[in-house]
Amino acid sequence: MLRFRTVLLVFVFILIARDASAQGTASVSLVDAYRNDADKIIDTALADSSGFERLAYMCDTFGHRFSGSENLERANDWILETMTADSLENVRGEAVMVPHWVRGREALTLLEPGQPRDLQILGLGGSVGTPAEGITGEVLVVKSFDELEERRDEAQGKIVLFNVAFTSYGRTVQYRVNGAVRAAQAGAIASLIRSVGPVSLYTPHTGTMRYDDDVPPISHAALTVEDAIMMQRMQDRGQRIRVRLMMEAQTLPDARSRNVVAEILGWERPEEIVVLGGHSDSWDVGQGAMDDGGGIVAAWEVLRVLKKLGLRPRRTIRVVMWTNEENGLRGATAYRDHHQDEIDNHVLAIETDSGVFKPRGFGFSGTSEAYAVIQEIGRLLERIESGDISRGGGGADIGPLMRQGVPGMGLSVEGEKYFWYHHTAADTMDKLDPHEFNLCVATLAVMAYVVADMPERLPSNRPASTN
Amino acid sequence: MLRFRTVLLVFVFILIARDASAQGTASVSLVDAYRNDADKIIDTALADSSGFERLAYMCDTFGHRFSGSENLERANDWILETMTADSLENVRGEAVMVPHWVRGREALTLLEPGQPRDLQILGLGGSVGTPAEGITGEVLVVKSFDELEERRDEAQGKIVLFNVAFTSYGRTVQYRVNGAVRAAQAGAIASLIRSVGPVSLYTPHTGTMRYDDDVPPISHAALTVEDAIMMQRMQDRGQRIRVRLMMEAQTLPDARSRNVVAEILGWERPEEIVVLGGHSDSWDVGQGAMDDGGGIVAAWEVLRVLKKLGLRPRRTIRVVMWTNEENGLRGATAYRDHHQDEIDNHVLAIETDSGVFKPRGFGFSGTSEAYAVIQEIGRLLERIESGDISRGGGGADIGPLMRQGVPGMGLSVEGEKYFWYHHTAADTMDKLDPHEFNLCVATLAVMAYVVADMPERLPSNRPASTN
Repeated sequence: MLRFRTVLLVFVFILIARDASAQGTASVSLVDAYRNDADKIIDTALADSSGFERLAYMCDTFGHRFSGSENLERANDWILETMTADSLENVRGEAVMVPHWVRGREALTLLEPGQPRDLQILGLGGSVGTPAEGITGEVLVVKSFDELEERRDEAQGKIVLFNVAFTSYGRTVQYRVNGAVRAAQAGAIASLIRSVGPVSLYTPHTGTMRYDDDVPPISHAALTVEDAIMMQRMQDRGQRIRVRLMMEAQTLPDARSRNVVAEILGWERPEEIVVLGGHSDSWDVGQGAMDDGGGIVAAWEVLRVLKKLGLRPRRTIRVVMWTNEENGLRGATAYRDHHQDEIDNHVLAIETDSGVFKPRGFGFSGTSEAYAVIQEIGRLLERIESGDISRGGGGADIGPLMRQGVPGMGLSVEGEKYFWYHHTAADTMDKLDPHEFNLCVATLAVMAYVVADMPERLPSNRPASTN
Repeated sequence: MLRFRTVLLVFVFILIARDASAQGTASVSLVDAYRNDADKIIDTALADSSGFERLAYMCDTFGHRFSGSENLERANDWILETMTADSLENVRGEAVMVPHWVRGREALTLLEPGQPRDLQILGLGGSVGTPAEGITGEVLVVKSFDELEERRDEAQGKIVLFNVAFTSYGRTVQYRVNGAVRAAQAGAIASLIRSVGPVSLYTPHTGTMRYDDDVPPISHAALTVEDAIMMQRMQDRGQRIRVRLMMEAQTLPDARSRNVVAEILGWERPEEIVVLGGHSDSWDVGQGAMDDGGGIVAAWEVLRVLKKLGLRPRRTIRVVMWTNEENGLRGATAYRDHHQDEIDNHVLAIETDSGVFKPRGFGFSGTSEAYAVIQEIGRLLERIESGDISRGGGGADIGPLMRQGVPGMGLSVEGEKYFWYHHTAADTMDKLDPHEFNLCVATLAVMAYVVADMPERLPSNRPASTN
């Protein structure tokens, strides 16, 4: 009897929800309609640490997963096998050719002042190497592109070091991305940066960089924060700084990789898709546990949790583990190109790429109408304090979809320490917490499920071709 | 007129001080008698950053200062020259033979699970090397000596890893110091530890270790916290762990080094000595900026500040930069032996070896009577919040003196992060602050000056041969 009344109640809620939705007041009724499912999803996601253990297994067993590496493809093989064993639907690898940069050996020797000594560096992804004997030269330390312009005469024939303190990632990373071009334009023979990070325990950070076609490519590497500050002190007290930079770095022919895909097909509108994921590749240091192993395994766990609960939504939820986010974004562009015919059917794209720390909510990019709906769904996450929906957000891998009008969002987390570890050997499992990981899974699962299941499609500016 | 009254006042204070001292109530009058001098000392110590800049110059120019290295002796040469140029008295190097351990190349390769990959290590000081082809074996991870005992059968022929989380330095360092002996007793072929530190950015910590004559010496090295935890996870999930450890480490014949000494001679009792210092040597990574470059340069600055102010105390203040604290303590024992005849004349020994962070005061070891005097002097430091005198304290270099009855004390500082950097490549200048360094100088200078100048000798249990 109780059971019948519950079923009736849910039915009435759904009717109200559909009706309210049609009148643009979906919000209240969505919360009521999905409260039960959301609570079950949250409880299930928090019930054990099997997802976290999978993430650790992957990181420990395969190591970092750099584009072009055997490690990445072994990890992809294991993911595909395990997803198949999980009985997920449409499990597949979609072929993508990716850049294949290899670091090789690298060394920076401080020749003077003092006795020669080796300093730790990380060459930046995509950099050209040096001759085998290295490049020897005097160092000019500058604190900004502006200072380089002012001292342009001094830069000629020297190795330029950009000693730029971390303020925000967006601002500071400009020196990593564009430093080699700017230094070469000033006549430098090689380029160094202070690692892009706020805290250092003699910790070099790698990352991608670029060349311009009309500027000669020069080798580009990151010093630790400690050594960059040391060279600043040396220059300030009038000591001549001479170094030898050796890098074996080279770019090999493109290599085969894959975007890994798995789905739970929608029961009513399988052609409409909520896409959810992160990137499978990492840098060639550390374990890529937070950038972005946690993101891909959390998305995978979303499907496992829904499957465990027997929750098949109206629309399809598709998990994608994009390859080559770090140094090419080939996975993201290949996905867009490969799925061009169904982009209109992408209802929402969700990316996790800021570490699977304690989740706060999402940053959402889409129409005001859609934002109101997402905020309302956020109320289902208040119980685990991850329902804060802010304006603006997305991710590099879903960028190509968003630029074609697909609403996008990124999971936001308490990532105060994220840039301590970012692109370093310290991006490892021990920095993550199983409960926080589970909270990310719960947050993603509730959001993906409700958007995939709610009667009305999430509003967007695109022509809704399949509605 | 004003001037005459001031002189009269000071004279009266000194008379009162001498009188009160004789009655065992020295405390009040010491504060009054030395308030002016203490304030001048503090003001002068805080006036500029020339001492801090000398520390940076030394660290940047000579690099780390490991026992037996050319770096250390070049730094000592520069200190001796500069102290002479400072017109300090009795500037000299006192010869000491020190152990000469050289690290050479070292590598740890994780052979399985997964594809082979190199992990970062630091061999522990004094360890034997491996054969050129390395030592290959299976890893047994244990969390304590007790667990090793319980699993003794499994340890036979394996490489034992002590995965012990940092609690306090004193407790955790037991595994670094004694791990090789304990592992060898259980039949292990090599020994690894989790680095002794509370926070890691893939940061190996080195440090000293020991062998027992009746146990075969096996190679002993530190993994990063990250890799130790990873191997624990691997073992816990049943993965077999195989590694190859290669270390070129060897111990060469003892090398020449020096204890560096400089003084301000006492005007009344030059034979009575307040000795003040730290150790000149560091580990062979980083700059040894806080361990213990800051300690020796701060002591040196004490003499510079007093000289600048024309303050010559009743007794001699002797600065000593002991060599080889890190891996042998030969400097400290050589000083004790060389100065055996005048140990009774050592009124007080002060060591700084916890980093020149914001000072809190001192930890003092001596009689209750002496403690009361030192506490009273501490009141002169309240202005800069460094007058907290706690019971118990000293330092490794002054240990041999203290064991012969010399009262000893160590500067205590806000060193919450000290063990983040300790014995790592991150022990560098950028972690230190010029104002905090100056506060250390001020604190040391006030304490050393008042103890050296006060009319009565600081009480001790030793026969006061010269009183």
